[in-house]
Amino acid sequence: MQAAHDPAPRPLVITQGDPEGVGPELLLRLGDAGLLGPEDRVIADRGALEALARHLAAGGERPWASRGLAAVLDRLEDDLPPGLTQVAALARGVDRVLAEPGHALVTAPIDKARCAAEGFAFPGHTEYLAARAGVRDFAMLMAGSRIRVVLATIHVPLREVPRLVTPAAIVNAGRLLARALRLDFGVAAPRVGVLGLNPHAGERGLLGDEEITTVAPAIAELRAWATAAGDPATFLGPLAADTAFPFHAEGRYDGLVAMYHDQGLAPFKLVHMHDGVNMTLGLPFVRTSPDHGTARDIAGRGVADPRSFFTAVAYARGRIPGEGTR
Amino acid sequence: MQAAHDPAPRPLVITQGDPEGVGPELLLRLGDAGLLGPEDRVIADRGALEALARHLAAGGERPWASRGLAAVLDRLEDDLPPGLTQVAALARGVDRVLAEPGHALVTAPIDKARCAAEGFAFPGHTEYLAARAGVRDFAMLMAGSRIRVVLATIHVPLREVPRLVTPAAIVNAGRLLARALRLDFGVAAPRVGVLGLNPHAGERGLLGDEEITTVAPAIAELRAWATAAGDPATFLGPLAADTAFPFHAEGRYDGLVAMYHDQGLAPFKLVHMHDGVNMTLGLPFVRTSPDHGTARDIAGRGVADPRSFFTAVAYARGRIPGEGTR
Repeated sequence: MQAAHDPAPRPLVITQGDPEGVGPELLLRLGDAGLLGPEDRVIADRGALEALARHLAAGGERPWASRGLAAVLDRLEDDLPPGLTQVAALARGVDRVLAEPGHALVTAPIDKARCAAEGFAFPGHTEYLAARAGVRDFAMLMAGSRIRVVLATIHVPLREVPRLVTPAAIVNAGRLLARALRLDFGVAAPRVGVLGLNPHAGERGLLGDEEITTVAPAIAELRAWATAAGDPATFLGPLAADTAFPFHAEGRYDGLVAMYHDQGLAPFKLVHMHDGVNMTLGLPFVRTSPDHGTARDIAGRGVADPRSFFTAVAYARGRIPGEGTR
Repeated sequence: MQAAHDPAPRPLVITQGDPEGVGPELLLRLGDAGLLGPEDRVIADRGALEALARHLAAGGERPWASRGLAAVLDRLEDDLPPGLTQVAALARGVDRVLAEPGHALVTAPIDKARCAAEGFAFPGHTEYLAARAGVRDFAMLMAGSRIRVVLATIHVPLREVPRLVTPAAIVNAGRLLARALRLDFGVAAPRVGVLGLNPHAGERGLLGDEEITTVAPAIAELRAWATAAGDPATFLGPLAADTAFPFHAEGRYDGLVAMYHDQGLAPFKLVHMHDGVNMTLGLPFVRTSPDHGTARDIAGRGVADPRSFFTAVAYARGRIPGEGTR
């Protein structure tokens, strides 16, 4: 990734996601807001976009639907088949970013159950993108203006977490976070906080020993790596999760490594429910997505909150608000 | 507990906590702020309070220390021995609230390691208070103006959590929360959200099965109890933890039942780091404490943030800001 303060914004490849979710109407809003650049490419079903724009315009309350449609169709990838599925759109988008270095990928939400029915054999975007790019060391970062948290384990049952939180998983997440903070967020010398697994980070072994056996050794390895590589990052912890998030929000750390899903995402979404961005770290291209699902229950009515999607677009371009100045 | 809108505020018994922590200076600030009532009783070491007030006044920046001292000494329990320890102060405070129904207990933070050295055989206040009161069904509630969350398990290693999250633990926490929301927070018909154990509340069994085997049956039991008892509470879930907290903060639920420590406290403290209150539910008396530790690193300098302690005092009196009107 380029640095956040790089003057040239990246061109984007944007995939439509679930055709029955909020992705298509968010594309229309993006076009209407003037946020599509001349080199951007949209991978979406033309007929479905046209039908949605007519439907929204007929409602009379969404003049942006017709204006947005023109802007989106101007940027639509050529030769897309009618009735393009979400899996095919995603595959085509990845073809594009792999073939055209310097482009970033923004993905609208997919419906996982329907993707599986279409033969998609991955838990989500993240794992699919890693497989397509041929990378094994990747991580999911949730980012917003106040909180940035990367997960050492993601979509696994809680009872599996203690076994899966290995030094290798923590080191991988910590290195990728440090790199992203420096290159994407413009933090010259990132301060990375690493959470403990147990309450109070184990309280010196009284409430669990994984901080001693696993987390602290991983932090030592991260520090040794930074020293050997001349990397300016510092690694702090193991930290008690319940106080680390407010300290992070107040500026004590530039980002956090959480051990598991709810430990990281419950605090993150409490602050960034409407403007959080999901970034996949470790890919050969920049990839972001909004921090919400398909929202089928409100899709097609033009009422979806676009902030998270717009922020995902800004992050993918390398325009990260409030960053790059430290 | 009385309802929050009861016109008569409760008299308090307030224990000093760790003499080398911030408890004593918070007592002085409480006195200076005019927040001690005529029937309140403070259980603290007179000599240590006098020495602290002299020390703070000598610094020249804390005129409140001498004013606060007079107010605190006016309310000091009689016959306290010189050099009163934190464990002895707590024991005396509990004697008082057990002997004088209608009083509420506010405890300043204790130093757990030092308490253990003084022969205190409990993990913390909560377990000690339950033992002294002879109750087995108790729970820890963290409460603030935006978030209220009770824990089904508290200070245990994460790897023990799946085994300890039983239907009985969830039902106990849910019932106590529903009762507290109605009687203490003035919510006529509380909407209680019950979190899942696994990410996305297990995603229909794909990410763990405890929602199916344990949490959903506990919710069914809570609903059956409410119906049988004519209790106006409703119980919702199992909820995905990462979206339940923002929905709660936006008003969809009146309180949440979290399955374990970091799931509940990381979001809570992110919002209520400086004004959160810890309430023990299930005791025969009201008990609150501030949501912070002894803070020995800043103690004795008069710089401790008093908001959490002052809020704990307000909650204990039955003066819960912004509540009681629904």
